[in-house]
Amino acid sequence: MLGKKNCILRLSRYKNELYRFKELGFVKIFSEYLAESVGVTSTQVRKDFSLFGISGNKRGGYTIDALIDRLNSILGKNQVQKVIVVGAGNLGSALLKYKSFEKQGIRLEAAFDVDPVKCSQKTGVPVRPMPALKSFVKSNGIKIAILCVPEIAAQGTIDTLIKAGIQGVLNFSPIQLKTPEETVVTNVNLEVELENLIYFINAHRSAESQRTD
Amino acid sequence: MLGKKNCILRLSRYKNELYRFKELGFVKIFSEYLAESVGVTSTQVRKDFSLFGISGNKRGGYTIDALIDRLNSILGKNQVQKVIVVGAGNLGSALLKYKSFEKQGIRLEAAFDVDPVKCSQKTGVPVRPMPALKSFVKSNGIKIAILCVPEIAAQGTIDTLIKAGIQGVLNFSPIQLKTPEETVVTNVNLEVELENLIYFINAHRSAESQRTD
Repeated sequence: MLGKKNCILRLSRYKNELYRFKELGFVKIFSEYLAESVGVTSTQVRKDFSLFGISGNKRGGYTIDALIDRLNSILGKNQVQKVIVVGAGNLGSALLKYKSFEKQGIRLEAAFDVDPVKCSQKTGVPVRPMPALKSFVKSNGIKIAILCVPEIAAQGTIDTLIKAGIQGVLNFSPIQLKTPEETVVTNVNLEVELENLIYFINAHRSAESQRTD
Repeated sequence: MLGKKNCILRLSRYKNELYRFKELGFVKIFSEYLAESVGVTSTQVRKDFSLFGISGNKRGGYTIDALIDRLNSILGKNQVQKVIVVGAGNLGSALLKYKSFEKQGIRLEAAFDVDPVKCSQKTGVPVRPMPALKSFVKSNGIKIAILCVPEIAAQGTIDTLIKAGIQGVLNFSPIQLKTPEETVVTNVNLEVELENLIYFINAHRSAESQRTD
Protein backbone atom coordinates (compact mmCIF):
# COMPACT_ATOMS: atom_id res chain seq x y z
CA MET A 1 0.00 0.00 0.00
CA LEU A 2 2.78 2.49 0.91
CA GLY A 3 4.62 1.81 -2.35
CA LYS A 4 1.44 2.40 -4.29
CA LYS A 5 0.68 5.51 -2.28
CA ASN A 6 4.09 6.98 -3.08
CA CYS A 7 3.59 6.14 -6.74
CA ILE A 8 0.26 8.00 -6.79
CA LEU A 9 1.84 10.98 -5.00
CA ARG A 10 4.48 11.05 -7.76
CA LEU A 11 1.82 10.89 -10.51
CA SER A 12 0.29 14.07 -8.99
CA ARG A 13 3.66 15.76 -9.02
CA TYR A 14 4.42 14.69 -12.61
CA LYS A 15 1.05 16.07 -13.66
CA ASN A 16 1.70 19.42 -11.91
CA GLU A 17 5.13 19.71 -13.53
CA LEU A 18 3.66 18.86 -16.96
CA TYR A 19 1.29 21.84 -16.63
CA ARG A 20 4.34 24.01 -15.97
CA PHE A 21 6.19 22.67 -19.02
CA LYS A 22 3.05 23.28 -21.08
CA GLU A 23 2.84 26.88 -19.87
CA LEU A 24 6.42 27.33 -21.03
CA GLY A 25 5.39 26.25 -24.54
CA PHE A 26 6.62 22.63 -24.49
CA VAL A 27 4.57 20.14 -26.55
CA LYS A 28 6.60 16.98 -25.91
CA ILE A 29 8.82 15.93 -23.02
CA PHE A 30 11.43 13.27 -22.28
CA SER A 31 11.26 11.34 -19.02
CA GLU A 32 14.68 12.81 -18.08
CA TYR A 33 13.33 16.38 -18.01
CA LEU A 34 10.27 15.39 -16.02
CA ALA A 35 12.42 13.36 -13.63
CA GLU A 36 14.76 16.27 -12.99
CA SER A 37 11.98 18.76 -12.29
CA VAL A 38 10.29 16.36 -9.84
CA GLY A 39 13.57 15.27 -8.26
CA VAL A 40 13.47 11.53 -9.06
CA THR A 41 15.35 9.34 -11.55
CA SER A 42 14.12 8.92 -15.12
CA THR A 43 13.93 5.16 -14.50
CA GLN A 44 11.44 5.90 -11.72
CA VAL A 45 9.30 8.03 -14.07
CA ARG A 46 9.21 5.31 -16.75
CA LYS A 47 8.50 2.63 -14.15
CA ASP A 48 5.61 4.61 -12.63
CA PHE A 49 4.12 5.26 -16.08
CA SER A 50 4.48 1.65 -17.20
CA LEU A 51 2.45 0.54 -14.15
CA PHE A 52 -0.50 2.36 -15.72
CA GLY A 53 0.25 1.30 -19.29
CA ILE A 54 1.63 4.70 -20.33
CA SER A 55 4.45 4.46 -22.84
CA GLY A 56 6.47 7.14 -24.58
CA ASN A 57 8.36 7.19 -27.82
CA LYS A 58 12.09 6.63 -27.37
CA ARG A 59 13.00 9.26 -29.93
CA GLY A 60 10.19 11.76 -29.44
CA GLY A 61 9.35 11.40 -25.75
CA TYR A 62 5.83 11.82 -24.37
CA THR A 63 3.18 14.16 -25.83
CA ILE A 64 2.40 16.51 -22.94
CA ASP A 65 -1.34 17.03 -23.60
CA ALA A 66 -2.03 13.32 -23.93
CA LEU A 67 0.04 12.58 -20.82
CA ILE A 68 -1.82 15.22 -18.76
CA ASP A 69 -5.18 13.81 -19.88
CA ARG A 70 -4.12 10.29 -18.97
CA LEU A 71 -2.80 11.32 -15.53
CA ASN A 72 -5.92 13.38 -14.80
CA SER A 73 -8.07 10.41 -15.66
CA ILE A 74 -6.04 8.08 -13.39
CA LEU A 75 -6.17 10.62 -10.55
CA GLY A 76 -9.94 11.11 -10.95
CA LYS A 77 -9.46 14.73 -11.95
CA ASN A 78 -11.65 14.65 -15.05
CA GLN A 79 -14.44 15.79 -12.74
CA VAL A 80 -14.58 18.39 -9.97
CA GLN A 81 -13.90 16.83 -6.55
CA LYS A 82 -16.10 18.12 -3.75
CA VAL A 83 -14.53 18.39 -0.31
CA ILE A 84 -15.68 19.72 3.07
CA VAL A 85 -13.60 21.28 5.84
CA VAL A 86 -14.49 20.24 9.39
CA GLY A 87 -13.34 22.68 12.08
CA ALA A 88 -13.25 26.36 11.05
CA GLY A 89 -10.56 27.56 13.48
CA ASN A 90 -7.33 29.20 12.35
CA LEU A 91 -6.13 26.40 10.14
CA GLY A 92 -9.56 25.47 8.75
CA SER A 93 -10.35 29.10 7.91
CA ALA A 94 -7.00 29.51 6.18
CA LEU A 95 -7.66 26.44 4.03
CA LEU A 96 -11.06 27.87 3.03
CA LYS A 97 -9.19 30.83 1.52
CA TYR A 98 -6.48 28.69 -0.09
CA LYS A 99 -6.78 29.33 -3.82
CA SER A 100 -4.60 26.50 -5.12
CA PHE A 101 -7.31 23.89 -4.47
CA GLU A 102 -9.72 25.39 -7.01
CA LYS A 103 -6.99 25.43 -9.67
CA GLN A 104 -6.57 21.69 -9.12
CA GLY A 105 -10.26 20.92 -9.60
CA ILE A 106 -10.86 20.53 -5.86
CA ARG A 107 -13.87 22.49 -4.65
CA LEU A 108 -14.41 23.22 -0.94
CA GLU A 109 -18.20 22.99 -0.73
CA ALA A 110 -18.75 23.91 2.90
CA ALA A 111 -17.16 24.03 6.32
CA PHE A 112 -18.64 22.75 9.57
CA ASP A 113 -18.02 23.88 13.13
CA VAL A 114 -19.56 23.43 16.59
CA ASP A 115 -19.16 27.15 17.35
CA PRO A 116 -22.25 29.21 16.34
CA VAL A 117 -20.08 32.36 16.11
CA LYS A 118 -17.95 30.78 13.39
CA CYS A 119 -21.11 29.64 11.59
CA SER A 120 -22.37 33.23 11.42
CA GLN A 121 -19.19 34.56 9.78
CA LYS A 122 -19.50 35.66 6.19
CA THR A 123 -16.70 34.04 4.25
CA GLY A 124 -16.65 32.80 0.68
CA VAL A 125 -17.43 29.23 1.73
CA PRO A 126 -20.37 28.90 4.18
CA VAL A 127 -19.62 27.58 7.69
CA ARG A 128 -22.48 25.37 8.86
CA PRO A 129 -23.32 23.89 12.26
CA MET A 130 -22.12 20.31 12.91
CA PRO A 131 -25.65 18.80 13.14
CA ALA A 132 -26.19 19.80 9.48
CA LEU A 133 -23.19 17.73 8.35
CA LYS A 134 -24.79 14.35 7.82
CA SER A 135 -27.57 15.49 5.51
CA PHE A 136 -25.21 17.80 3.61
CA VAL A 137 -22.72 15.00 2.97
CA LYS A 138 -25.44 12.66 1.80
CA SER A 139 -27.31 15.08 -0.45
CA ASN A 140 -24.13 16.44 -2.07
CA GLY A 141 -22.37 13.09 -2.43
CA ILE A 142 -19.31 14.28 -0.50
CA LYS A 143 -16.68 11.58 0.09
CA ILE A 144 -13.71 13.60 1.37
CA ALA A 145 -13.21 15.79 4.43
CA ILE A 146 -10.33 17.88 5.72
CA LEU A 147 -10.22 17.54 9.51
CA CYS A 148 -8.96 20.64 11.36
CA VAL A 149 -10.58 20.23 14.79
CA PRO A 150 -8.59 20.37 18.05
CA GLU A 151 -6.85 17.15 19.08
CA ILE A 152 -9.36 16.41 21.83
CA ALA A 153 -12.31 16.48 19.41
CA ALA A 154 -10.61 14.61 16.56
CA GLN A 155 -11.64 11.00 17.25
CA GLY A 156 -15.27 11.85 17.97
CA THR A 157 -15.48 14.01 14.87
CA ILE A 158 -14.00 11.41 12.52
CA ASP A 159 -16.46 8.84 13.90
CA THR A 160 -19.29 11.24 12.95
CA LEU A 161 -17.80 11.82 9.50
CA ILE A 162 -17.55 8.11 8.75
CA LYS A 163 -21.13 7.52 9.89
CA ALA A 164 -22.20 10.30 7.52
CA GLY A 165 -20.54 8.54 4.58
CA ILE A 166 -17.10 10.19 4.36
CA GLN A 167 -14.54 7.75 2.91
CA GLY A 168 -11.32 9.78 2.91
CA VAL A 169 -9.93 12.21 5.50
CA LEU A 170 -6.97 14.60 5.36
CA ASN A 171 -6.24 14.84 9.08
CA PHE A 172 -4.37 17.79 10.58
CA SER A 173 -4.88 16.81 14.21
CA PRO A 174 -1.72 15.39 15.76
CA ILE A 175 -3.14 12.05 16.88
CA GLN A 176 -3.43 8.62 15.31
CA LEU A 177 -7.14 8.20 14.61
CA LYS A 178 -8.85 4.84 14.82
CA THR A 179 -10.92 4.20 11.68
CA PRO A 180 -12.39 1.24 9.78
CA GLU A 181 -9.98 -0.40 7.34
CA GLU A 182 -11.82 0.91 4.26
CA THR A 183 -11.50 4.55 5.32
CA VAL A 184 -8.46 6.29 3.80
CA VAL A 185 -6.77 8.68 6.24
CA THR A 186 -3.78 10.85 5.36
CA ASN A 187 -2.12 12.56 8.32
CA VAL A 188 -0.45 15.94 8.00
CA ASN A 189 1.32 16.44 11.30
CA LEU A 190 3.12 19.77 11.21
CA GLU A 191 4.83 19.43 14.61
CA VAL A 192 6.22 16.03 13.66
CA GLU A 193 7.50 17.38 10.34
CA LEU A 194 9.22 20.27 12.13
CA GLU A 195 10.75 17.93 14.71
CA ASN A 196 12.12 15.86 11.87
CA LEU A 197 13.76 18.94 10.32
CA ILE A 198 15.24 19.89 13.70
CA TYR A 199 16.68 16.41 14.14
CA PHE A 200 18.38 16.34 10.74
CA ILE A 201 19.80 19.84 11.15
CA ASN A 202 21.21 18.98 14.57
CA ALA A 203 22.61 15.69 13.25
CA HIS A 204 24.24 17.55 10.36
CA ARG A 205 25.71 20.14 12.69
CA SER A 206 27.16 17.60 15.12
CA ALA A 207 28.68 15.63 12.21
CA GLU A 208 30.28 18.89 11.01
CA SER A 209 31.70 19.76 14.42
CA GLN A 210 33.15 16.24 14.66
CA ARG A 211 34.87 16.74 11.32
CA THR A 212 36.42 20.03 12.40
CA ASP A 213 37.54 18.70 15.80
CA MET B 1 17.97 8.73 4.04
CA LEU B 2 14.25 8.03 3.54
CA GLY B 3 14.36 5.05 5.93
CA LYS B 4 16.07 7.16 8.54
CA LYS B 5 13.60 10.00 7.97
CA ASN B 6 10.66 7.65 8.55
CA CYS B 7 12.32 6.33 11.70
CA ILE B 8 12.71 9.87 13.07
CA LEU B 9 9.08 10.66 12.19
CA ARG B 10 8.07 7.59 14.20
CA LEU B 11 10.22 8.66 17.17
CA SER B 12 8.25 11.94 17.22
CA ARG B 13 4.99 10.05 17.18
CA TYR B 14 6.12 7.64 19.94
CA LYS B 15 7.10 10.62 22.06
CA ASN B 16 3.72 12.34 21.52
CA GLU B 17 1.87 9.14 22.44
CA LEU B 18 4.04 8.69 25.54
CA TYR B 19 2.93 12.11 26.78
CA ARG B 20 -0.69 10.95 26.35
CA PHE B 21 -0.04 7.73 28.30
CA LYS B 22 1.65 9.81 30.99
CA GLU B 23 -1.37 12.13 31.23
CA LEU B 24 -3.52 9.04 31.75
CA GLY B 25 -1.39 8.08 34.75
CA PHE B 26 0.81 5.40 33.18
CA VAL B 27 4.35 5.11 34.57
CA LYS B 28 5.61 2.20 32.47
CA ILE B 29 4.65 0.95 29.05
CA PHE B 30 5.16 -2.14 26.88
CA SER B 31 6.20 -1.76 23.24
CA GLU B 32 2.92 -3.46 22.23
CA TYR B 33 0.79 -0.64 23.72
CA LEU B 34 2.92 2.06 22.15
CA ALA B 35 2.88 0.22 18.81
CA GLU B 36 -0.88 -0.03 18.82
CA SER B 37 -1.46 3.63 19.61
CA VAL B 38 0.93 4.75 16.85
CA GLY B 39 -0.34 2.15 14.37
CA VAL B 40 2.88 0.16 13.80
CA THR B 41 4.05 -3.31 14.89
CA SER B 42 5.78 -3.79 18.24
CA THR B 43 8.80 -5.21 16.37
CA GLN B 44 9.07 -1.85 14.59
CA VAL B 45 9.00 0.02 17.93
CA ARG B 46 11.75 -2.17 19.42
CA LYS B 47 13.82 -1.93 16.22
CA ASP B 48 13.55 1.87 16.13
CA PHE B 49 14.54 2.12 19.80
CA SER B 50 17.45 -0.29 19.44
CA LEU B 51 18.90 1.92 16.67
CA PHE B 52 19.39 4.57 19.35
CA GLY B 53 20.51 2.18 22.09
CA ILE B 54 17.21 2.33 23.97
CA SER B 55 16.28 -0.95 25.61
CA GLY B 56 13.33 -1.93 27.76
CA ASN B 57 12.85 -4.59 30.37
CA LYS B 58 11.13 -7.68 29.01
CA ARG B 59 9.00 -8.09 32.12
CA GLY B 60 8.49 -4.45 33.10
CA GLY B 61 8.53 -2.61 29.78
CA TYR B 62 9.90 0.90 29.38
CA THR B 63 9.80 3.62 32.05
CA ILE B 64 7.78 6.41 30.41
CA ASP B 65 9.62 9.41 31.93
CA ALA B 66 13.05 8.07 31.02
CA LEU B 67 11.86 7.18 27.53
CA ILE B 68 10.39 10.67 26.96
CA ASP B 69 13.66 12.28 28.14
CA ARG B 70 15.70 10.09 25.84
CA LEU B 71 13.46 10.74 22.81
CA ASN B 72 13.43 14.49 23.49
CA SER B 73 17.19 14.49 23.65
CA ILE B 74 17.47 12.56 20.34
CA LEU B 75 14.96 14.90 18.69
CA GLY B 76 16.77 18.00 19.95
CA LYS B 77 13.81 18.99 22.08
CA ASN B 78 15.70 19.59 25.31
CA GLN B 79 15.95 23.21 24.16
CA VAL B 80 13.40 25.57 22.59
CA GLN B 81 13.61 25.50 18.80
CA LYS B 82 13.26 28.89 17.14
CA VAL B 83 11.49 28.99 13.80
CA ILE B 84 10.42 31.79 11.42
CA VAL B 85 7.45 31.87 9.04
CA VAL B 86 8.09 33.38 5.62
CA GLY B 87 4.97 34.61 3.83
CA ALA B 88 2.16 35.91 6.05
CA GLY B 89 -0.79 35.20 3.74
CA ASN B 90 -3.72 32.99 4.73
CA LEU B 91 -1.73 29.89 5.53
CA GLY B 92 1.24 31.69 7.11
CA SER B 93 -1.06 33.76 9.35
CA ALA B 94 -2.94 30.65 10.41
CA LEU B 95 0.31 28.94 11.41
CA LEU B 96 1.27 31.98 13.50
CA LYS B 97 -1.86 31.36 15.57
CA TYR B 98 -1.37 27.58 15.73
CA LYS B 99 -1.00 26.78 19.42
CA SER B 100 0.30 23.21 19.15
CA PHE B 101 3.79 24.35 18.16
CA GLU B 102 4.45 26.09 21.48
CA LYS B 103 3.39 22.97 23.38
CA GLN B 104 6.05 21.04 21.46
CA GLY B 105 8.87 23.44 22.35
CA ILE B 106 8.78 25.08 18.91
CA ARG B 107 8.68 28.88 19.10
CA LEU B 108 7.67 30.98 16.09
CA GLU B 109 9.96 33.99 16.57
CA ALA B 110 8.83 36.18 13.69
CA ALA B 111 7.15 36.21 10.30
CA PHE B 112 8.40 37.96 7.17
CA ASP B 113 6.46 39.30 4.20
CA VAL B 114 7.02 41.54 1.18
CA ASP B 115 3.68 43.30 1.75
CA PRO B 116 3.97 46.40 4.02
CA VAL B 117 0.25 46.08 4.92
CA LYS B 118 0.85 42.62 6.41
CA CYS B 119 3.88 43.98 8.26
CA SER B 120 1.73 46.64 9.94
CA GLN B 121 -0.82 44.14 11.29
CA LYS B 122 -0.84 43.60 15.03
CA THR B 123 -0.72 39.87 15.68
CA GLY B 124 0.95 37.97 18.48
CA VAL B 125 4.04 37.27 16.40
CA PRO B 126 5.50 40.34 14.62
CA VAL B 127 5.44 40.37 10.80
CA ARG B 128 8.63 42.02 9.51
CA PRO B 129 9.63 43.22 6.03
CA MET B 130 11.69 40.77 3.94
CA PRO B 131 14.85 42.96 3.86
CA ALA B 132 15.06 42.55 7.66
CA LEU B 133 15.23 38.75 7.38
CA LYS B 134 18.95 38.23 6.95
CA SER B 135 20.08 40.18 10.01
CA PHE B 136 17.24 38.70 12.12
CA VAL B 137 18.19 35.13 11.20
CA LYS B 138 21.86 35.78 11.96
CA SER B 139 21.41 37.64 15.24
CA ASN B 140 18.83 35.14 16.57
CA GLY B 141 20.59 32.00 15.36
CA ILE B 142 17.51 30.79 13.43
CA LYS B 143 18.08 27.62 11.44
CA ILE B 144 14.55 26.67 10.40
CA ALA B 145 11.90 28.43 8.29
CA ILE B 146 8.34 27.59 7.29
CA LEU B 147 7.83 28.71 3.70
CA CYS B 148 4.28 29.86 2.88
CA VAL B 149 4.85 32.20 -0.07
CA PRO B 150 2.97 31.83 -3.39
CA GLU B 151 4.37 29.28 -5.83
CA ILE B 152 5.85 31.94 -8.12
CA ALA B 153 7.93 33.46 -5.31
CA ALA B 154 9.03 30.18 -3.71
CA GLN B 155 12.36 29.51 -5.42
CA GLY B 156 13.59 33.10 -5.08
CA THR B 157 12.59 33.16 -1.42
CA ILE B 158 14.27 29.89 -0.50
CA ASP B 159 17.49 31.12 -2.21
CA THR B 160 17.33 34.20 0.07
CA LEU B 161 16.69 32.02 3.14
CA ILE B 162 19.68 29.78 2.45
CA LYS B 163 21.96 32.78 1.88
CA ALA B 164 20.78 34.12 5.26
CA GLY B 165 21.82 30.89 6.99
CA ILE B 166 18.60 28.83 7.10
CA GLN B 167 19.38 25.08 7.04
CA GLY B 168 15.94 23.49 7.14
CA VAL B 169 12.70 24.46 5.39
CA LEU B 170 9.14 23.20 5.79
CA ASN B 171 7.81 24.07 2.33
CA PHE B 172 4.09 24.54 1.66
CA SER B 173 4.45 25.80 -1.91
CA PRO B 174 3.51 23.13 -4.46
CA ILE B 175 6.76 23.09 -6.41
CA GLN B 176 9.99 21.12 -6.16
CA LEU B 177 12.57 23.64 -4.91
CA LYS B 178 16.20 23.47 -5.99
CA THR B 179 18.47 23.67 -2.94
CA PRO B 180 22.05 22.76 -1.98
CA GLU B 181 22.47 19.17 -0.83
CA GLU B 182 23.07 20.14 2.81
CA THR B 183 19.75 22.03 3.11
CA VAL B 184 16.95 19.86 4.51
CA VAL B 185 13.60 20.52 2.81
CA THR B 186 10.33 18.85 3.80
CA ASN B 187 7.45 19.40 1.39
CA VAL B 188 3.85 19.59 2.57
CA ASN B 189 1.79 19.62 -0.61
CA LEU B 190 -1.88 19.73 0.32
CA GLU B 191 -3.25 19.44 -3.23
CA VAL B 192 -1.12 16.37 -3.87
CA GLU B 193 -2.28 14.78 -0.59
CA LEU B 194 -5.92 15.42 -1.51
CA GLU B 195 -5.43 14.01 -5.01
CA ASN B 196 -3.97 10.92 -3.44
CA LEU B 197 -7.06 10.50 -1.22
CA ILE B 198 -9.33 10.99 -4.23
CA TYR B 199 -7.43 8.34 -6.18
CA PHE B 200 -7.69 5.72 -3.43
CA ILE B 201 -11.36 6.39 -2.84
CA ASN B 202 -12.14 6.11 -6.55
CA ALA B 203 -10.03 2.95 -6.81
CA HIS B 204 -11.89 1.48 -3.84
CA ARG B 205 -15.27 2.38 -5.33
CA SER B 206 -14.50 0.90 -8.76
CA ALA B 207 -13.22 -2.30 -7.10
CA GLU B 208 -16.51 -2.47 -5.17
CA SER B 209 -18.66 -1.95 -8.25
CA GLN B 210 -16.70 -4.69 -10.02
CA ARG B 211 -17.41 -7.04 -7.14
CA THR B 212 -21.13 -6.33 -7.29
CA ASP B 213 -21.31 -6.59 -11.11
